[in-house]
Amino acid sequence: MAEFLKLAVPDEALGVFLEKFDSPLSPEEIETIQAVGRVNYESIFAGSPLPAFPRSTVDGYAVAARDTFGASDSLPVYMQVIGEVMMGESPDFVISSGTCGLIHTGGMLPEGADSVVMLEHTQSVRAGEIEVFRAVGVGENVILPGEDVRKGEEVIPPGVKLRSAEIGGLMALGITRIKVTRRPLVGIISTGDEIVPPEIVPPKGKIRDVNSYSLSALVETCGALPIRYGIVKDQRQELFSAVRIALDACDLVVITAGSSASSRDMTAAVINEVGSPGVIFHGINIRPGKPTILAACRATEGGAIKAVIGLPGNPVSALVIATLVVDPVIKKLSGLRTPSQRPRVHARLSINLASQAGREDWIPVRLIEGEELSSRPRYSGKVT
Amino acid sequence: MAEFLKLAVPDEALGVFLEKFDSPLSPEEIETIQAVGRVNYESIFAGSPLPAFPRSTVDGYAVAARDTFGASDSLPVYMQVIGEVMMGESPDFVISSGTCGLIHTGGMLPEGADSVVMLEHTQSVRAGEIEVFRAVGVGENVILPGEDVRKGEEVIPPGVKLRSAEIGGLMALGITRIKVTRRPLVGIISTGDEIVPPEIVPPKGKIRDVNSYSLSALVETCGALPIRYGIVKDQRQELFSAVRIALDACDLVVITAGSSASSRDMTAAVINEVGSPGVIFHGINIRPGKPTILAACRATEGGAIKAVIGLPGNPVSALVIATLVVDPVIKKLSGLRTPSQRPRVHARLSINLASQAGREDWIPVRLIEGEELSSRPRYSGKVT
Repeated sequence: MAEFLKLAVPDEALGVFLEKFDSPLSPEEIETIQAVGRVNYESIFAGSPLPAFPRSTVDGYAVAARDTFGASDSLPVYMQVIGEVMMGESPDFVISSGTCGLIHTGGMLPEGADSVVMLEHTQSVRAGEIEVFRAVGVGENVILPGEDVRKGEEVIPPGVKLRSAEIGGLMALGITRIKVTRRPLVGIISTGDEIVPPEIVPPKGKIRDVNSYSLSALVETCGALPIRYGIVKDQRQELFSAVRIALDACDLVVITAGSSASSRDMTAAVINEVGSPGVIFHGINIRPGKPTILAACRATEGGAIKAVIGLPGNPVSALVIATLVVDPVIKKLSGLRTPSQRPRVHARLSINLASQAGREDWIPVRLIEGEELSSRPRYSGKVT
Repeated sequence: MAEFLKLAVPDEALGVFLEKFDSPLSPEEIETIQAVGRVNYESIFAGSPLPAFPRSTVDGYAVAARDTFGASDSLPVYMQVIGEVMMGESPDFVISSGTCGLIHTGGMLPEGADSVVMLEHTQSVRAGEIEVFRAVGVGENVILPGEDVRKGEEVIPPGVKLRSAEIGGLMALGITRIKVTRRPLVGIISTGDEIVPPEIVPPKGKIRDVNSYSLSALVETCGALPIRYGIVKDQRQELFSAVRIALDACDLVVITAGSSASSRDMTAAVINEVGSPGVIFHGINIRPGKPTILAACRATEGGAIKAVIGLPGNPVSALVIATLVVDPVIKKLSGLRTPSQRPRVHARLSINLASQAGREDWIPVRLIEGEELSSRPRYSGKVT
């Protein structure tokens, strides 16, 4: 238990750990519409400007701005209406001095026009003639070609998580297929002589496997693909084989160590045996989750150094630490460059919880709305 | 454009609207491990207590607390070690006065023991005998049967979104299949004579369909299944048929109306024609998205009243309003009882944006970390 003497500070430990394993990204080309939640692999540039032609942003009349100079309620300008811009069509008329054309929001500005007078600032006088009550400036109520996106502009840098807005933006540019980073594969191993599969009614002394499943769910939520390697007994050779097999197939291996000190020590020893550099931190100054193992192993000669994480066996602890540690590793392995900020709220804890000086405490709570936001721990404090 | 004269207040409008359509929930039984992100359909009760037997929460010695009475560093209590509790096994010995048994974290307490002395508060004297330096109380370092979950307790109420913690909790109880609510089907119709599919290079005057895809992505993110009904011309009969077909198959129909006032009016008219009550709000006092249509239609006699939403044609506006309006409708249709709070942060806007009194402005921004958090609008203000 010598490693426990010096507990690492969580943020520092994570920072060091994230530098210890490789993260070779590989692309995968998929339909853009399938790409929501995935991470963009390479810079995407606009092949054409957006919009591609000058468009009206209002319903009104396309005009040459100089023709409206001085127009007011008391002194309207009279203009001849020479046509209507049909939606989706290139106008079949040209604006010359004293003339205008009816145009709808999104319609293409006719040649000769440089602005649009809003419908509500005009009045029909007789067929083919309107009064204009407001002067417009050049470019008013018009969006110019390239104003949203310039041709050649980088629209999405690599490492960005694609959300609905990005999917839409890509479609606007006609980019219907996209290279995203391959989803990391995360191997999950549950250890412990006391663990049985959830389908079984556990005999006295045994408990059901929880961690394989809660961690699978979490890994999926983080954007990776979980592979469950089942339950491994607290037996060194068996664990060694399981870790080797998982490490061969996966980008990250997560082991929920048994809860007892001896089981945790065995897990650390096995990780060191699998490949160097091995265990980097065994013990983080955090509650729950003090016995966390952060490791990196080059399992095959010349192969990549892969991350291996040993989580506490207690299901609540395992999930808390996975949120803090497994999630950032998956982000790195996905090539996500701007890890999303964890949303934070301030809430008043409804009970007193003691915390040791220098130790971080992470307690799952339920938020309760009231005059002020308060929080109540969701589980008994009996976690390790 | 008469409807525009009285613009509804966004929150009020949404509240009224959410009461106007039916939300008949139907269950679907799936593997628990597939249920992450889904909504629980019915109350789930614990068939057995958790833990099922008294367990040690530390590594140490199982004792009868009364035997340790008065133990201290200067006056230790001597105890005979009569066995070791093997992980996952029922102890094969019984604790009697003056005896104790080695136990590991998670191990089952032997009969006769009521507490555990931590390893670090003991010392081995000779084989089979230890000194105890600290007294323990009854129940100390022990978790009792049912302390985490009582038998018969409701562990997950209906309407809860299942996350990794819930998946784990269900597995702990051996619940490997679960009834979740069916995912709502959301029909998406893009309208506009100017819209072409994204694969096509748009001729002058035309633009690519963005909304079908960004809305599909958003709908998926909200936990529903999108069905795209393609692009419909600004032609009343064509739109009527498309809405009828979509409403027949889907739980919610979203139409991105053309941007011009006439196109929006046509959309509203078609919705009224499809089924009553029809349009409930046409115009919300919000920017962007003023021309939003909130409607409900009973499309077939005796059938359910279904929600129909008309979104602005501008892609940014459509996405902003969808986040505010489509998302809560999907939550209702999924049976989600406790809609997750939208995370909020305070940030200083890096530019001045004018806002009309009484109007809500929703501006997509990029958050920038610095001495204080600041925000910069992501798009030009030219949205309608």
